[in-house]
Amino acid sequence: MSASINLAVIPGDGIGPEVIAEALKVLEKAVAAEGVDLQQTHYKLGAEHWLATGETLPDEVLADLRTRDAILFGAVGAAPGDTRIPSGIIEREMLLKLRFSLDHYVNLRPSRLYGTVGSPLANPGVIDFIVVREGTEGPYVGNGGTLRAGTPHEVATEVSLNTAHGVERVVRDAFRRAGARERKHVTLVHKHNVLVYAGHLWKRTFEAVAQEFPEVTHDYLHVDAATIFMVTDPSRFDVIVTDNLFGDILTDLAAAITGGIGLAASGNINMDRTAPSMFEPVHGSAPDIAGQQKADPTAAILSAALLLDHLGYAAAARKIEAAVIADVENRDGGARSTSAVGDAIAAAL
Amino acid sequence: MSASINLAVIPGDGIGPEVIAEALKVLEKAVAAEGVDLQQTHYKLGAEHWLATGETLPDEVLADLRTRDAILFGAVGAAPGDTRIPSGIIEREMLLKLRFSLDHYVNLRPSRLYGTVGSPLANPGVIDFIVVREGTEGPYVGNGGTLRAGTPHEVATEVSLNTAHGVERVVRDAFRRAGARERKHVTLVHKHNVLVYAGHLWKRTFEAVAQEFPEVTHDYLHVDAATIFMVTDPSRFDVIVTDNLFGDILTDLAAAITGGIGLAASGNINMDRTAPSMFEPVHGSAPDIAGQQKADPTAAILSAALLLDHLGYAAAARKIEAAVIADVENRDGGARSTSAVGDAIAAAL
Ligand SMILES: CC(C)[C@H](C(=O)O)[C@@H](O)C(=O)O
Ligand SMILES: CC(C)[C@H](C(=O)O)[C@@H](O)C(=O)O
Repeated sequence: MSASINLAVIPGDGIGPEVIAEALKVLEKAVAAEGVDLQQTHYKLGAEHWLATGETLPDEVLADLRTRDAILFGAVGAAPGDTRIPSGIIEREMLLKLRFSLDHYVNLRPSRLYGTVGSPLANPGVIDFIVVREGTEGPYVGNGGTLRAGTPHEVATEVSLNTAHGVERVVRDAFRRAGARERKHVTLVHKHNVLVYAGHLWKRTFEAVAQEFPEVTHDYLHVDAATIFMVTDPSRFDVIVTDNLFGDILTDLAAAITGGIGLAASGNINMDRTAPSMFEPVHGSAPDIAGQQKADPTAAILSAALLLDHLGYAAAARKIEAAVIADVENRDGGARSTSAVGDAIAAAL
Repeated sequence: MSASINLAVIPGDGIGPEVIAEALKVLEKAVAAEGVDLQQTHYKLGAEHWLATGETLPDEVLADLRTRDAILFGAVGAAPGDTRIPSGIIEREMLLKLRFSLDHYVNLRPSRLYGTVGSPLANPGVIDFIVVREGTEGPYVGNGGTLRAGTPHEVATEVSLNTAHGVERVVRDAFRRAGARERKHVTLVHKHNVLVYAGHLWKRTFEAVAQEFPEVTHDYLHVDAATIFMVTDPSRFDVIVTDNLFGDILTDLAAAITGGIGLAASGNINMDRTAPSMFEPVHGSAPDIAGQQKADPTAAILSAALLLDHLGYAAAARKIEAAVIADVENRDGGARSTSAVGDAIAAAL
């Protein structure tokens, strides 16, 4: 733990800059109280930047980002109707490239239902689990191709790549996190009855790593069954570990049942600390409401708390979380501007 | 439309035989009223059969099934703890082999919330959509492999195969079905920002086929966003078309929000009628409650209605549906045996 944080900030597109401004407001106040110096370097990246320059993530920028302690990331992505930008190019060549290049193998996504926040579920019960989503392999590797594109004989493939190295480290991380929680339970989610090769690697690794953690209980669910429990009995979950694609799907669903993606934080974590980790709200750039101070900055603020946790400032992280909980539990459904929410949480610190 | 139905029946494992008995009870009564002769051939297949014989789906049995007009299927699969059966072998070598061999490219799964049936959602609204899940390709093809199994250097792959032929026919089927519905809207669900190759084939095909159906509106959702809408605004959906794996996930979630998989019916349909189609409840074999008359046979009964629809007996299908709706809307949460539910629905025909 150092007494200074060398922070990279990537506000990105749409509502990204607005929510990041509030996250920084809270972060600055939280670290100042600990006597920690926060240095910020802001990077212009995203769809807007691509339109202006044709750049997604230049090598020099990636090299520069590597010199920082951590990255605070807003959101990227063009408006759905914007045909000037090839679909998904920013997501893949920027966001996913960062996750892969910086070896963010733990994509950590906590889900908690705060007292009065509106879950769409009639009887949500207590929801408090984390999803440890693999972040560097699986169907996200971009390995695939197209034959005879645009003809009636087109064939398109997508290859999911899974390695013992990649699966084992993320599974072990999930068991470690479970061991530090009250209920100490890990659920592996996959679809090994159909995706046999990847599924069996995950299942075998899961069973093997479980032996190292006798105090942690574990079970397995197919991904389809997991979505059912997510809406009928979310309290059953404590720690979920799963692959990149299933994790993408489950964490959006998890965000929805805990009151929406306005609250869902995430960390893209390199647990070996060979490169900076990156913290971002689960939500996207929401171009339809951008620049209108309508976005909820809570997810970005909670992401800043995860960042502090990762850098070893647990006390400051807990303070932010407490301020968020106090704010969220007192929401009455009235509309507040993005900055009003940030102000309230910063004031409550 | 013939005045006789040559039906194959595969009750399968666990609760399969119990729910199929009720589906047959209702089916027999419904077709008798139309003056249709129902011939049944029962096949012993599934986990129990494998344990007894080592057979999953012998070629002769598959050939015999091809001679039938349609297949009514219960559920297959061993108890999760049963280590005598290699995981997933019955599902793949029997259930999926049937879907693939008989070219069941339209995996049709209607989702409807009946009046008083308990949705886990606080404000479900009107839920009435169908999912047209591709049934013969995608990540389900079993194409993949394992290198250096069991070593720290293991690599496992899963290849999703997608063809213009396969995508176009199921997309066109979805638009056709939408055209026959009131709202006439199709949503493509995929993840084309990450799964570019398959995603772009789906997206391009979707846009092209949409041109043939000017009366049908259409939109696109990433699968993660689709799960959010499924719990926050399911009324937005009319017809969903999606790939095999996303369809598997979304239809279990859809079943959950409409009151559970006890009600979810499905058809594995070969629209070209080059082979018999197969109708089955979405639920599994539920070994934990098997043989106890605890299973809800409604999904199996509704699957029989889909079967009649496919064979051209729309009036009989509507009668079964009406009897089911009447029964479901009057449920008071009290426990009834599997056969009591079947009796009530048959009586209401
Ligand atoms: C934008 C997209 C590439 C990304 C993903 O699929 O991982 C997003 O949905 C997320 O979950 O962070
Ligand atoms: C049993 C399994 C192979 C099957 C599938 O994944 O298709 C089931 O979940 C279903 O949805 O019918």
